[in-house]
Amino acid sequence: MREARKGMLLVISGPSGAGKGTLYNRVLAADPTITFSVSYTTRGPRPGEVDGKDYCFVTEEQFRQMLDRDGFLEHADVHGHLYGTPRQPVLDALEAGRSVMLDIDPQGALQVMEKMPDCVSVFILPPSFAELRRRLTGRGTEKPEEIERRLRNARGEVQLMGKYQYLVVNDDLEVAYRTLQGIVDAEKQRSSRYFPVVEEE
Amino acid sequence: MREARKGMLLVISGPSGAGKGTLYNRVLAADPTITFSVSYTTRGPRPGEVDGKDYCFVTEEQFRQMLDRDGFLEHADVHGHLYGTPRQPVLDALEAGRSVMLDIDPQGALQVMEKMPDCVSVFILPPSFAELRRRLTGRGTEKPEEIERRLRNARGEVQLMGKYQYLVVNDDLEVAYRTLQGIVDAEKQRSSRYFPVVEEE
Repeated sequence: MREARKGMLLVISGPSGAGKGTLYNRVLAADPTITFSVSYTTRGPRPGEVDGKDYCFVTEEQFRQMLDRDGFLEHADVHGHLYGTPRQPVLDALEAGRSVMLDIDPQGALQVMEKMPDCVSVFILPPSFAELRRRLTGRGTEKPEEIERRLRNARGEVQLMGKYQYLVVNDDLEVAYRTLQGIVDAEKQRSSRYFPVVEEE
Repeated sequence: MREARKGMLLVISGPSGAGKGTLYNRVLAADPTITFSVSYTTRGPRPGEVDGKDYCFVTEEQFRQMLDRDGFLEHADVHGHLYGTPRQPVLDALEAGRSVMLDIDPQGALQVMEKMPDCVSVFILPPSFAELRRRLTGRGTEKPEEIERRLRNARGEVQLMGKYQYLVVNDDLEVAYRTLQGIVDAEKQRSSRYFPVVEEE
């Protein structure tokens, strides 16, 4: 069986605390052909965050220069900090047949859906706002006012879920992971990306 | 977790001998919420075929009357026999939130994709034409000239695979089944059909 595949651009969004990082990191671990796109940000690194792995930490001036060169596929101002997806690495990976995963906020996700209509967009939902509050509180890393801000944001983000192609509720982690993995696997069978050849012999 | 779902219209096509019946019957067995749409045909029943289950066997006059009343979602003339999908049962099932599976030839499938752009279309491929010939011969039910005709048809049908959303190669039956089931499960998560509600508590 001869076959060829094009890479896919996977856009994952969801409120802080919905568990999207845990979910997509399992997908990345299971499928080494998918590259994670590291975003640029002007915010400072949090304890444990590694430059070039979690984010590329840059100054606002560096960010603005890259923006002037049209160097971002999407960018957004989130709570006063700039975030952006570098364009060229994504295009290069797709060109080479590799898939790329983006973890971006709804502002950026909507930009990518418009510019790259072939992308696969998935929104991860918490089962309830009460559970989201429990998860954000349980982390123990955010101050109460930060938790309240994230909860307000979550209510706004959830309003936009209909803009995404797929919805996954992260109630049971195992079920949610299998659902997300299933979406990724199904999308690999798209005739726009998958080119099997029925040979004679 | 409150949620609502709309039904989906699944269109399955593939050359005779590709094994699509075996595959979609497993999907139907695993998911009793999907209804199989029984086609109307003017050809006579083959040994073992049950009227109303495999096909609704009708006369050409009955078929033409239904066609005049716009009673078919699609219809096609295949080797001199008429085949059609009755429109109303499909629309009624979808309206009631049930999913419907159609097993139809490419002529009909293209009609359905145009009329029902929300449908999910899957084309099942054999791994090779040599294997397709072995499967058609192995059935022992078709005459040699019928097998040759089906092989010629298969070559034509395979040219149209790019018109379908998803492609599944049925080389290993178990792998192909899991792939088809995965496509159906992923499509259930589409935001156009799936309406989860993030509740307060």
